[in-house]
Amino acid sequence: MNDTPRPDSLTTELLSDDELHRIDGWWRAANYLTVGQIYLMANPLLREPLAPEHIKPRLLGHWGTSPGLSLIYVHLNRLIVKYDLDVIYMAGPGHGGPALVANVWLEGSYSEFYPEITADAPGMLKLFRQFSTPGGIPSHVSVPTPGSIHEGGELGYVLVHAFGAVMDNPDLIVTAVVGDGESETGPLAGSWKGIDFINPVRDGAVLPILHLNGYKIAGPTVWARHDDRDLDAFFRGQGYAPVFVEGDDPATVHRAIAAALEESVTTIRAIQRDARANGLRGRPHWPLIVLRTPKGWTGPKFVDGKPIEGTFRAHQVPVADTRNNAEHRRILEDWMRSYHPEELFDEAGRLRAEYAALAPAGARRMGANPQANGGLLMTPLALPEWQDYALHLEHPATERIGSTAVLGQYLRDIYRANPHNFRLFCPDETNSNRLGAVFEVSDRCLVSTIIPGDDHISPEGRVMEVLSEHNCHGWLEGYTLTGRHGLFATYEAFAMIVDSMAMQHSKWIEHAKRVPWRADIPSLNYLLTSTCWRNDHNGFSHQGPGFIDTIIHRKPTVARVYLPPDANCLLSVADHCFRSVNYLNLIVIDKQPQLQWLTLEEATAHCAAGAGTWPRYSRNPERPDIVLACAGDIPTQEIIAAASMLRQYLPDLGVRIVNVVDLMRLAPADRHPHGMSDEEFISIFTAGTPVVFAFHGYAGVIHDILHGRDAHERFHVRGYQEEGTTTTPFDMVVLNGISRLHLCLDVVRYVPGLLTKGAALVAECNRLLAEHEVYIREHLEDMPIVADWVWTDG
Amino acid sequence: MNDTPRPDSLTTELLSDDELHRIDGWWRAANYLTVGQIYLMANPLLREPLAPEHIKPRLLGHWGTSPGLSLIYVHLNRLIVKYDLDVIYMAGPGHGGPALVANVWLEGSYSEFYPEITADAPGMLKLFRQFSTPGGIPSHVSVPTPGSIHEGGELGYVLVHAFGAVMDNPDLIVTAVVGDGESETGPLAGSWKGIDFINPVRDGAVLPILHLNGYKIAGPTVWARHDDRDLDAFFRGQGYAPVFVEGDDPATVHRAIAAALEESVTTIRAIQRDARANGLRGRPHWPLIVLRTPKGWTGPKFVDGKPIEGTFRAHQVPVADTRNNAEHRRILEDWMRSYHPEELFDEAGRLRAEYAALAPAGARRMGANPQANGGLLMTPLALPEWQDYALHLEHPATERIGSTAVLGQYLRDIYRANPHNFRLFCPDETNSNRLGAVFEVSDRCLVSTIIPGDDHISPEGRVMEVLSEHNCHGWLEGYTLTGRHGLFATYEAFAMIVDSMAMQHSKWIEHAKRVPWRADIPSLNYLLTSTCWRNDHNGFSHQGPGFIDTIIHRKPTVARVYLPPDANCLLSVADHCFRSVNYLNLIVIDKQPQLQWLTLEEATAHCAAGAGTWPRYSRNPERPDIVLACAGDIPTQEIIAAASMLRQYLPDLGVRIVNVVDLMRLAPADRHPHGMSDEEFISIFTAGTPVVFAFHGYAGVIHDILHGRDAHERFHVRGYQEEGTTTTPFDMVVLNGISRLHLCLDVVRYVPGLLTKGAALVAECNRLLAEHEVYIREHLEDMPIVADWVWTDG
Repeated sequence: MNDTPRPDSLTTELLSDDELHRIDGWWRAANYLTVGQIYLMANPLLREPLAPEHIKPRLLGHWGTSPGLSLIYVHLNRLIVKYDLDVIYMAGPGHGGPALVANVWLEGSYSEFYPEITADAPGMLKLFRQFSTPGGIPSHVSVPTPGSIHEGGELGYVLVHAFGAVMDNPDLIVTAVVGDGESETGPLAGSWKGIDFINPVRDGAVLPILHLNGYKIAGPTVWARHDDRDLDAFFRGQGYAPVFVEGDDPATVHRAIAAALEESVTTIRAIQRDARANGLRGRPHWPLIVLRTPKGWTGPKFVDGKPIEGTFRAHQVPVADTRNNAEHRRILEDWMRSYHPEELFDEAGRLRAEYAALAPAGARRMGANPQANGGLLMTPLALPEWQDYALHLEHPATERIGSTAVLGQYLRDIYRANPHNFRLFCPDETNSNRLGAVFEVSDRCLVSTIIPGDDHISPEGRVMEVLSEHNCHGWLEGYTLTGRHGLFATYEAFAMIVDSMAMQHSKWIEHAKRVPWRADIPSLNYLLTSTCWRNDHNGFSHQGPGFIDTIIHRKPTVARVYLPPDANCLLSVADHCFRSVNYLNLIVIDKQPQLQWLTLEEATAHCAAGAGTWPRYSRNPERPDIVLACAGDIPTQEIIAAASMLRQYLPDLGVRIVNVVDLMRLAPADRHPHGMSDEEFISIFTAGTPVVFAFHGYAGVIHDILHGRDAHERFHVRGYQEEGTTTTPFDMVVLNGISRLHLCLDVVRYVPGLLTKGAALVAECNRLLAEHEVYIREHLEDMPIVADWVWTDG
Repeated sequence: MNDTPRPDSLTTELLSDDELHRIDGWWRAANYLTVGQIYLMANPLLREPLAPEHIKPRLLGHWGTSPGLSLIYVHLNRLIVKYDLDVIYMAGPGHGGPALVANVWLEGSYSEFYPEITADAPGMLKLFRQFSTPGGIPSHVSVPTPGSIHEGGELGYVLVHAFGAVMDNPDLIVTAVVGDGESETGPLAGSWKGIDFINPVRDGAVLPILHLNGYKIAGPTVWARHDDRDLDAFFRGQGYAPVFVEGDDPATVHRAIAAALEESVTTIRAIQRDARANGLRGRPHWPLIVLRTPKGWTGPKFVDGKPIEGTFRAHQVPVADTRNNAEHRRILEDWMRSYHPEELFDEAGRLRAEYAALAPAGARRMGANPQANGGLLMTPLALPEWQDYALHLEHPATERIGSTAVLGQYLRDIYRANPHNFRLFCPDETNSNRLGAVFEVSDRCLVSTIIPGDDHISPEGRVMEVLSEHNCHGWLEGYTLTGRHGLFATYEAFAMIVDSMAMQHSKWIEHAKRVPWRADIPSLNYLLTSTCWRNDHNGFSHQGPGFIDTIIHRKPTVARVYLPPDANCLLSVADHCFRSVNYLNLIVIDKQPQLQWLTLEEATAHCAAGAGTWPRYSRNPERPDIVLACAGDIPTQEIIAAASMLRQYLPDLGVRIVNVVDLMRLAPADRHPHGMSDEEFISIFTAGTPVVFAFHGYAGVIHDILHGRDAHERFHVRGYQEEGTTTTPFDMVVLNGISRLHLCLDVVRYVPGLLTKGAALVAECNRLLAEHEVYIREHLEDMPIVADWVWTDG
């Protein structure tokens, strides 16, 4: 679309000498404050000679990346003011926390969020003392950092968060700084392609800045040892128009980065203006900046004869032991004084007006931009009545209907009612997961060449499909962190690919709930379909319910797990999740046609309770000899089929069927907010009746959740046992010992006095299991006698 | 180094007409067998008209990628024969399983592994019937597939496996086919950089083939909509010299791919010859092939008026319902007959000799290459005596020594004794994890520009550091799958990034143990350092022990978890793990200086038992009032500190200290092979004494493992509770309620009759907790009274 200038053309003298002086002053102030946070606990303005007692006893923090982060910050300030831009800043190298805190303090927003940290000398001292100190603030950019919606602790996600934030956010520009270490991670490498999904007509823009400072903790980065020609090719190949800035002379780099940013922002605006006026014509070539500056730039050059600036030794604390080692202390003092704090701060310790004037006003300051506290911008979803989509069951437990297909219709109408506020994220499985009804109202998004034969694909689409769980999860994080709503739907086994992202996001939410100024954000909703039990066709690699484990060990205040057994329950659960804030809501249900158990009214009551007895499928439930409990669709089917066999063979047996939708209801009330009281637990599971429990995931999950209940000896849990291959659905439940036959054998085993009365049932179960084995050995199709069993009342 | 030809130069007429005819014949045979596996259960050679009863009732399998996989296979055969190459084949799009099975059957190796699947018509019929059938073989390339060490079920790992396999494997070429869908994943995108770590002097080569067939399940791929210029730039930017092959006319594509492969192999050999003769001069430009062919190439063009070949509709079964729909059946029959099976197979159903002659001989066949059954090539590690590295403790429990630094010396000498057989993989943290002693004998590996000031970096190094957990894990998988040994060391929290890879690898090992011809492979060993308890400086994002959860839910036959409490135990455990095969061995221990508890002799006995009483730290352990149990280094420290307080305040209390190194010893013997008998469990934990248990990870892990023991009511477990920030080590244990003070309070709570006698202790604990809170609020340094507490006997 537009060709951006090559490096050698970046000589434009954009900055007046005065501007340069003021920008450099702000930058020096930010660097000074960064060093101060790492080192000082007194004498913040160095108005006395530096003494040992001014220095913290424990030195923590990362200097290496910080000067680069501050350089970008101050130059963005200039452009925000010049063009009245709506910009937020994401620091991929989030360990450069003190740099971001320094800039936010300089612009004044820090003191608005934290009035005790005033914008003067006493505030500066508190700023220094609190950093990376018990009871203070973390060393990384994190939840308490104004202006941030990206924790840079676990590297790799800055671009996915940035792209998610700008979707349906047409005026927003996210400046995403990517560290060259971070760029070695898989998730980051896979996230450059975000531009193939950004439509300048309706979306904002991401400006990636690859910050090459050469080293990680100890080794050189891969990219640092490739030349500019390689980097240029790499980025052009992906559709970017890269601009290079390199140097170690501050004035030169100031001028070059100012030109590069000016060029980039102008290009972004031109792309957007053109697309919005004339329509989209092909994928734009979005700008990207490669910034090569020394690691630990402006820091000590040598310590103990070893080079520091520009080497891996500048990564964290570049000069150590400054309390005891006078020479080191002198290096520190010289270093700090090289920024000339006396020029930068006035008598009161305030940033002098000439520099302070660089900050944008009010909410344009990056630390105060509401996009970085996205809950402020949240509008609740306009949700259709879920009841309108419910199945009207004439004969429950007889017909097989795909539940996710029903949900698809509900999602379609959520799209319809929320045209700029809701997206579905899925690794190319929307149809496979039977949610295809959404394509009636929205296409798959692809901002690239569309060719005849493509199915529901356009740059206007809002169904986000990319074969990358990392992109899907990260985009949805960015979307919800800026106040919008969505759903991540994926094959169950492959959710574990984003275990770590789920953990980190749960930590964000948990932490945010404790930071008073952070507004609630929409929950991150997961739908896991194509579950282990029904990946009989894809085989062992596709069978893994481990994501439930990941979610249940999140802080109980933020994690929810739902296992709706049928379509009506799924609708009710989805409605509940879409209304919630500040949770990770995990919903697990298979996509295949499945038996439907509950009417609309029954599902409403059952989901409201989260767990309860199903009288329709029980016999003498008031005086049960056995409680048959289940959580999950296939376990529910097997439990009810077992009840059917029991009714046939042991007609006098009292059988209470219990289904659990909201898994955490099983937890003791003091361990999870959804946990039920002991009274309720007993009312459902009785005080002493044996319980045979069929669970969707690993049995250990139930052992863990039930811990603390008076339930240990009498609960017999069966779940997925890491057994499977390409086989039939029934063989899957047999292989894992959760079939109706195994459950019936358990009942005979655990209900006292059934050994004789149950002999015929035991014989029949063993006969069927043996027959099944023969059948499997002979490579036949599903064993009809078992596959076709359904519940018939009576 | 060398410039490879641009696409337009690939017109070399390498193949004679006869060769072309024979190659095309093999390819048609492979395609025919692929379709046959998906569709047929009778009439395998179509010697009768196709009837409904010849067709499987359930159609499974993926056609779309298969013709491309087979095309590459047959052309590799030609080159293997021509140049006597050592080549194995990794299919990234592993869902093309039937293609690989077809080729392996054609070359004869399949029938050698599976004698009942003969290389004739009856064998062909069995081959068809077994595919994706209960009791048969999985639909994906998987463990039972001869020639494969890469399960393509979960996409994204083909290049990491390939690069790992060729390390220290100088003659091996791994052809790694990368699907264009797969190439959207983060792990794959991050794995192209493998060439920056491949040294042609000592390593083999990976030949990546990006197979662009345009579509995923439903949507177009990102790369398919970029032009060749983009792709060329993308790969050149990363150091490759890409060669393009494109077309849909078989003869043209045969000639082009033959030329591209010939060129690539020649280039690889030239790079290696030059480097081995003249030394390495810079990073070579390795060849890479981009192959653009239609999805479902040679399959049905239209079904029901909709285009199939070249569209997403060709992904799985391109024409459905062929039993009932006569028109569909006709399409299927025409399709299969278009390959002319009567020309390809003789009367007996054997591949005719003219085609069969294309196969390499014996172990050069890709299905029979021992590299793809790498356990055959395994040499046990030459292990130094771990005892030689043990700490000689004069005063246990007083000195603080970093345990991983001790392990580092042992690893150094493993490197020394195994110069081509062992590597350490780490995301740039070897020094940070205190394993830096290895740099005395090996550098970090980087095959790129080395500059002055770089620290222990060279192309000859075998310490593999890249800031990508995915690369580290995947490389080690490839290394062990080809029979070599290694260790993946990483920060504990970030191990969850590879949860999914660990799960998939555990499934591979588990499955391989059941495939008789698969040889044992070295275990995959994990060392998690920088644990949650001691990431007080990095903060909340770095605090997560969830990888333990991932491992304990793997099949008990393949998963082991070790929590050595000190250096001597760590050495013993590491030695044990390095000798083992077919496991995922997880070792968790922090890197910071820590108290050392056991002498060499004690550690030897303790680790051999896996769990046991520590008499030295107990009082009246034969008649305990309380069992204080611990697993993990910091929990051990807190338990023993609690014992110290108890001794002071309640000198008559019988206190038995129990430490658990091998976590799975706690499991009931029928649930895990390491599980101890009930008798042994009682001998350690008594039959009824209350147990206060301090655990390194989430308490739920212990609840789960203990399930089935008579231990429910009396075990009171404390663990990591998802609480943390940047703070002190002691605050971490306070925040999570696992501190010595909390443990003492538990003792008073749970030991009957202590309420009065323990009142002073309770008061002291509460006083210290309150004092701690004040101290944290006041931003002071660690509370000395607590931090300095160590065990003093007496």
